[in-house]
Amino acid sequence: MSDVINLANKFNLFQEPWHPKIVGKLNDSYVKLAKLKGEFVWHHHDNEDELFLVVKGTLVIKLRDRDLTIHEGEFAIIPKGVEHLPVAEEEVQVLLLEPKSTSNTGNVQNERTVEAEWI
Amino acid sequence: MSDVINLANKFNLFQEPWHPKIVGKLNDSYVKLAKLKGEFVWHHHDNEDELFLVVKGTLVIKLRDRDLTIHEGEFAIIPKGVEHLPVAEEEVQVLLLEPKSTSNTGNVQNERTVEAEWI
Repeated sequence: MSDVINLANKFNLFQEPWHPKIVGKLNDSYVKLAKLKGEFVWHHHDNEDELFLVVKGTLVIKLRDRDLTIHEGEFAIIPKGVEHLPVAEEEVQVLLLEPKSTSNTGNVQNERTVEAEWI
Repeated sequence: MSDVINLANKFNLFQEPWHPKIVGKLNDSYVKLAKLKGEFVWHHHDNEDELFLVVKGTLVIKLRDRDLTIHEGEFAIIPKGVEHLPVAEEEVQVLLLEPKSTSNTGNVQNERTVEAEWI
């Protein structure tokens, strides 16, 4: 069943930052939406590249050697194995694309680790 | 190497409709941008689900039993095997996500078939 997914409507369905929600699946990946605010945790994904498309706001992804600043209408792909730290000074709305196996905290398991649910 | 990709800047680099350009790769998939104008050809993809995220304009994807109308800020996923016909009355800018193996015309090989190149 193919449905049309409206990003703004979906973002209105949740508030909590750093809790990605699943809004689509294709092949072996999920499309997720997340609100980000503040600083996350340094982590990497052993086996999964991860796409961050900024829908609203400005996201900084710190890498060990530099920062990526991603504005609305821009995306970046963090390759597997690359340590990164997302930082959102103000709330950011982001579309994520990543394999179904991806944990939000990657190699780290702590109180920030959450399982994404469908909305 | 992780870079920040600006969609608007990339769309400015090409004009020709129905010639998807590759702007990123992650896992086994490419992120592509395409400008669509007019009617494409009925086709399906045997093994690949395909995501259409409308960045600008309004895209209609005809299915055999109904039409999907996708506005700016909306996406739809066409599952493998599902016949579809994209139609853009006015120019549409779309972000596609699909496995590297995906041909733009799927099961059909004709004069509309093109190989995507990186921009």
